[in-house]
Amino acid sequence: MAVSTVYTIQPLNSSCSSIISTQTKSHLGFNQKQQVLFFSKRITTTTNSSRRGIITCSSAEKTVVIGLAADSGCGKSTFMRRLTSVFGGAAEPPKGGNPDSNTLISDKTTVICLDDYHSLDRTGRKEKGVTALDPRANNFDLMYEQVKAIKDGVAVDKPIYNHVTGLLDPPELIKPPKILVIEGLHPMYDQRVRDQLDFSIYLDISNEVKFAWKIQRDMAERGHSLESIKASIEARKPDFDAYIDPQKQYADAVIEVLPTQLIPDDNEGKVLRVRLIQKEGVKHFNPVYLFDEGSTISWIPCGRKLTCSYPGIKFTYGPDTYFGNEVSVLEMDGRFDRLDELIYVESHLSNLSSKFYGEVTQQILKHADFPGSNNGTGLFQTIVGLKIRDLYEQIVASRAEALQTAKA
Amino acid sequence: MAVSTVYTIQPLNSSCSSIISTQTKSHLGFNQKQQVLFFSKRITTTTNSSRRGIITCSSAEKTVVIGLAADSGCGKSTFMRRLTSVFGGAAEPPKGGNPDSNTLISDKTTVICLDDYHSLDRTGRKEKGVTALDPRANNFDLMYEQVKAIKDGVAVDKPIYNHVTGLLDPPELIKPPKILVIEGLHPMYDQRVRDQLDFSIYLDISNEVKFAWKIQRDMAERGHSLESIKASIEARKPDFDAYIDPQKQYADAVIEVLPTQLIPDDNEGKVLRVRLIQKEGVKHFNPVYLFDEGSTISWIPCGRKLTCSYPGIKFTYGPDTYFGNEVSVLEMDGRFDRLDELIYVESHLSNLSSKFYGEVTQQILKHADFPGSNNGTGLFQTIVGLKIRDLYEQIVASRAEALQTAKA
Repeated sequence: MAVSTVYTIQPLNSSCSSIISTQTKSHLGFNQKQQVLFFSKRITTTTNSSRRGIITCSSAEKTVVIGLAADSGCGKSTFMRRLTSVFGGAAEPPKGGNPDSNTLISDKTTVICLDDYHSLDRTGRKEKGVTALDPRANNFDLMYEQVKAIKDGVAVDKPIYNHVTGLLDPPELIKPPKILVIEGLHPMYDQRVRDQLDFSIYLDISNEVKFAWKIQRDMAERGHSLESIKASIEARKPDFDAYIDPQKQYADAVIEVLPTQLIPDDNEGKVLRVRLIQKEGVKHFNPVYLFDEGSTISWIPCGRKLTCSYPGIKFTYGPDTYFGNEVSVLEMDGRFDRLDELIYVESHLSNLSSKFYGEVTQQILKHADFPGSNNGTGLFQTIVGLKIRDLYEQIVASRAEALQTAKA
Repeated sequence: MAVSTVYTIQPLNSSCSSIISTQTKSHLGFNQKQQVLFFSKRITTTTNSSRRGIITCSSAEKTVVIGLAADSGCGKSTFMRRLTSVFGGAAEPPKGGNPDSNTLISDKTTVICLDDYHSLDRTGRKEKGVTALDPRANNFDLMYEQVKAIKDGVAVDKPIYNHVTGLLDPPELIKPPKILVIEGLHPMYDQRVRDQLDFSIYLDISNEVKFAWKIQRDMAERGHSLESIKASIEARKPDFDAYIDPQKQYADAVIEVLPTQLIPDDNEGKVLRVRLIQKEGVKHFNPVYLFDEGSTISWIPCGRKLTCSYPGIKFTYGPDTYFGNEVSVLEMDGRFDRLDELIYVESHLSNLSSKFYGEVTQQILKHADFPGSNNGTGLFQTIVGLKIRDLYEQIVASRAEALQTAKA
C-alpha cells in the first residue's frame, strides 16, 4: 500500500517563481514521499521551471480558498457544479489524467475532494477498524501543507483516492487556481487547514431528510433493504457526530435541510425547509436579507400577485445566534412550481451579489435538472455561489489596493 | 319638545346659486319645520342671497363626504382631530354659535356629529324606551336630505343635540365645506345617506378593549362601580349589535382595536393590537402595504437596527376577505416607545399617500398628547387621514379633468 512518487512541478503564474522541498513523512497506514512547496515573500530570486526554486507571486494573485463540509451523499457535487457555473466555464476533471480523479477544474476554480487525503485506503480502514469519517483515516498534515502551498501560489502533487477501487492512486498535479474549493468530510476539522480558508460552508442535512434521501437512492434505485439502510446510517452516526457535525460551528454559512413544516407530519423529503445561516461580521461577506435587514420577517409570497399550488412557499428571515455567533437566517419552506415564482422571490431578496437582475433565476434555470433546483437547496447554493464570487472579487480588489498603497 | 325654526341661508361659493324649499316633516317624538336645500344642475338662473333660489356649482367644487361610524367613547373625536390636522388649520366649533355645538370647522373640513339628528331627546328616548342607538331615535330623512344638500353645495341649518342638557337646541348653519365628515353612530345605516359617502370608516373596538377603557374612564376617573359599568355595557349591547355593528360591512376602511397578543392573557387594554382593514377596488383609495403588495407578511422591526423594549412591536400584513369583500389588512401589535421606532416603521410602509418623507411621524408627534399616539390607533388614524386627503385630491382632479373634457 505504500505510495512513493517524485512529483514534477510546472511553472505557475508568469509573475511567480517556485521553490520545491522534498520531505518524507510517515502517516497512518502508508509512507508517502512528497514534495511540499513553500512560498516565501522574503526571497525574490527567480528559478522558474526548476526542480528546486523559490516562489514569489504578487499577493493580489494568491489563491482564495473555500471550504465545503458535508457528509457523503448530501449534494456536495451538485453544490460544486452550481458554484463553478457562477464563475463561468464548464468544470471538468484534469485533462489526460486519471479517469477516476475527483478533481474538477474550470477557468477560475479548482475543486478538490478531501477524500484524496485519506491516509488509509478501504482495506486499510477495514484492517484498523476505522471509518473514513475518523480523523485517523485522513492525513491532515499533508492536507494542510498542500492547501497552504496552493494558497501561496505553488503547484502540488495531490494524492488521489479512487472511489471505485478504494485504493490510493498515483497523485495528480494541482496548479494554484484563482479559487480553490476543498470539499469533503473534514475541511474545517484541523485548525491549520481551517485557518487557510477565506470562506467556509457547511451543508447540514437533518437526519430525517438524510434518511428519506437514502431510502430514495439506496432502496428504490439500488435495491437495498430498509433495515440495511437504517443500519448503515446508525453505524456512521457516532463518528459523524464526533468528527463531522462539530465543524458547522466554524462555518461562515450553513445550509440546513429540514422536513417541510407546510405539510403536517410530512416525512417524504420531497418538500423541504431549507435554512441559510449566515455569520455576521465576516469580512467581504454581506448576508442576503429579505425586505428589512436585521429585523424578523415571515413572507408568504403566494397571494394576489403570485399564485402558487399546494403547499405554497414560505420565507422567514431574521437575526439569531448559532454556536454563540451572531447570524442572519434566511429560510425557504416549499418549492417552486413555475419560473415566475422563482423570479418573484429573487426580486424581493436583497444583497444577492448578482451582477444583473435575474441572475439567480438564470443560474438555476441553466441547471434545472440538478437536484434541488425547485427548492431552497438550489436557491441557497446558487446564492452562496454568488456570495463567493463577490468575496473573491472583493479580496482581489483589496489586495490590489494594498499593493498600490505599498508601492506608493 | 317641538322645535320650530325658520332658517336663514347665506350665499355659498361665488360660482354657486341656491334654491330653498320649505317643508314640514313629522318625526318620531317631535315636529320640525325645516328648510331643505336642493341642488339642480338643470337650472342655471342665479338668485344669490335670496330666500328662494337655485344652486349651481361647478361640479369640481362639490363637497366630498366621509362617514365615520363608531360607538360612543371609542375615540371618534380624537380620530377627527387627527384627520382635520392632516388638512392643516385648527378645527374649531362654529364661531359665535352655540357653545355646545358638536361641529368642528377647519379650513377645508367640517365635521358634524350625527347625534344632531336625534329625533328624540334624552327625555323622549326615556319615554319611548329607546336608546340613542335605535334608529327610531334618529331622523334619517333629515340626515339624508341635509348631507345630500351639502354635498350638492347647499348650506343647511342643522339641528344641534346638546349633549350637556340632552335637549335639541336651535339649529346652526352648516356651509358646504370641501370635505364633510359625518361621524356618529349611524353614518352607514340608512342606504340613502350611505350612498352619499365618498369614503367610509368604521372604528371597531373589541368588547374586551371597550370594557378595559370604560373601567379606566368610568371607574378610575368617575368613580362608577365595576357592576354598573358591566350593566351599562350589557344594556347597550343588543341595540349596538343590531344597528351599529352591521355597518362595518359597508366600510371602505375598518380600524379594529383588540387586546395585544404579545403579552399572554393581557386584559389591561394598555398594549393594543390594531388592524387596518382596507377594502380593495375602492376608487381613489390605494391600500397601504408592507414590503410586498398582496402577499402575507409578518414583521418584527425590533432587531439589529432597531431595539425596542418589552413587549416589542409586531406588524402583520396580508390579503383577506371581510364580509365577502376582498381586503388588505395591516396590523400593528405593541406600542412605540421612542420616536425612532415610529420613523423606522413609517419608512417601511408603502402607499402612505404622504406628501413628504416622515409626514406620518410628524403628524403623530404634533399630537403626541392625543390618546393612542404610541400605538396602532394613532398610526392608522393618521394614515387614514392621509388616504382621505389623497382621495379628496384625486376626486377634485378627476372632476376638473371631466369638466375640461366636457368643455372641449
